[in-house]
Amino acid sequence: MSDEKNQIPTFDDVLEAHERIKPYIHRTPVLTSRFLNELTGAELFFKCENFQKAGAFKVRGACNAVFGLDAEKAAIGVATHSSGNHALSLSYAAGQRGIPVTVVMPHTAPQAKKDAVEGYGGRIVECEPSTTSREAVFAEVVAESGADFVHPYNDPRVIAGQATCSLELLDQVPGLDAVIAPIGGGGMISGTCLTLSNKAPGVKIYAAEPLNADDAARSLKAGHIIADDAPNTVADGLKVPLKELTWHFVSNYVSDIFTATEEEIIEAMKLTWKRMKIVIEPSSAVPLAAILKNPEVFRGKRVGVIITGGNVDLDALPWN
Amino acid sequence: MSDEKNQIPTFDDVLEAHERIKPYIHRTPVLTSRFLNELTGAELFFKCENFQKAGAFKVRGACNAVFGLDAEKAAIGVATHSSGNHALSLSYAAGQRGIPVTVVMPHTAPQAKKDAVEGYGGRIVECEPSTTSREAVFAEVVAESGADFVHPYNDPRVIAGQATCSLELLDQVPGLDAVIAPIGGGGMISGTCLTLSNKAPGVKIYAAEPLNADDAARSLKAGHIIADDAPNTVADGLKVPLKELTWHFVSNYVSDIFTATEEEIIEAMKLTWKRMKIVIEPSSAVPLAAILKNPEVFRGKRVGVIITGGNVDLDALPWN
Repeated sequence: MSDEKNQIPTFDDVLEAHERIKPYIHRTPVLTSRFLNELTGAELFFKCENFQKAGAFKVRGACNAVFGLDAEKAAIGVATHSSGNHALSLSYAAGQRGIPVTVVMPHTAPQAKKDAVEGYGGRIVECEPSTTSREAVFAEVVAESGADFVHPYNDPRVIAGQATCSLELLDQVPGLDAVIAPIGGGGMISGTCLTLSNKAPGVKIYAAEPLNADDAARSLKAGHIIADDAPNTVADGLKVPLKELTWHFVSNYVSDIFTATEEEIIEAMKLTWKRMKIVIEPSSAVPLAAILKNPEVFRGKRVGVIITGGNVDLDALPWN
Repeated sequence: MSDEKNQIPTFDDVLEAHERIKPYIHRTPVLTSRFLNELTGAELFFKCENFQKAGAFKVRGACNAVFGLDAEKAAIGVATHSSGNHALSLSYAAGQRGIPVTVVMPHTAPQAKKDAVEGYGGRIVECEPSTTSREAVFAEVVAESGADFVHPYNDPRVIAGQATCSLELLDQVPGLDAVIAPIGGGGMISGTCLTLSNKAPGVKIYAAEPLNADDAARSLKAGHIIADDAPNTVADGLKVPLKELTWHFVSNYVSDIFTATEEEIIEAMKLTWKRMKIVIEPSSAVPLAAILKNPEVFRGKRVGVIITGGNVDLDALPWN
């Protein structure tokens, strides 16, 4: 990793990213549900990145990285490893710029995500579903192709891109008391911290993760990164561990990290589909599960809830 | 049925309905999908009544009927028979006004719809899944309670209410060439005809129905109403036959009625969930199925597509 990839991104990077990626992404809508407000006692504002290009917020960071490359680097192409949505997003971004892209992906990833990567023109190299295998296979791919590594979250370009999501949210919903987002590797949360700490430092930042992959919650408590190898959860976007850059933001700006069981996640996912009529993936349901489980934290508050994506294998729904 | 319930509604009724129901309904968003535009060669504008109160457009007509009652009639309450969404919607409307409501419903209706009716405070009386049984059981209910009958579609108040949907659509999307909606009893299509023939007479009006319940298409061809008893289709909102009022609009203003097979409907439904990330019910997928099947009719056109509702039993999806 070059020095510039170790730099903490700044709020100026976010504003630059915002302009750079505008032509390639949607300004996604914010939806509300009277039913869920009454159920939780909070005012919830769902930022719907499931309606984003490629079906997830990750296209923000991917586009910022791809469109920030100089012509020479771009021609060689980009590569990444990802449990799914970053792979789709980087493939989409590379396709928009017309440059090559290779993604290393666990062979257990949902077929819908593999199909979508290939649909955008991405090349897939499969690995085992563990962090260790993923990183080993990926090192080979980069050595062989010379492609620019766009890490799914531990990359300042990616974090600055994800930060544009809460920049829009602040513009769309005045007077927020808190924002809650799922946490896996921490890219979305880090972007949220970057924007809010600069633009709205009074807004509390919460994260939510599966109890089965609660490494971020344990990290926050311990005061240093704890990384698990291959945790198992229905929220397949949230299996990866924190890294240096995202740990910087999580440790400095996140008020608390809540956990939810597999059952609670699936229940919150189904409730969202049923009541809001939107297709969201399991990872996106973890914040609502956390709010339902900890009503005293959110009651009476105006809460931004990041719906991170909607890429679901409709033939393998978790409640069937 | 009293004389005033045989009156063809006018455009003034639509404008009145629009003001009357505003506090109780959503102005639903119009969504687009680049993927579906490329697939069909048309520009499709999806009017998302799946996001409507009670999960379907039918709340428009129900609210117009309920809030148009004088105090004396309102106190006695309302009643209806419905294959589902009108039952939910009338229950919602009656609940908003705080008056009693009874619905006659086939015992085969999706459990999700029965639960929702009761959730809104409606009383359910079950019948067999045929038009004959439904009408017989309903006659008993009305005789016993004296409730005001709000027919699911053959009622001028209901048609004027449904007509507010395309009133919004015209405001949201300039320059439409055509609008397409599902047709069952013809309430939505009649409302669409009423609005468009007055406000935008150049816009073509198409309907789409299941091949398994193609009575409207056969009626249009024959020049008179053909009614089938108990057709079987996954699009459970579209099983009912045309009646005098809706036949008036269909026979005068609808350019063509397209049909789609069960497989084509399910495929279009799944495609919408997957690509647009919205939960729509099978009936709502029939127009897209028709567009995919008849691309030459829609190619190069700006087409409004009415997504009529999103009330689906998530435990019994048609592709599982």
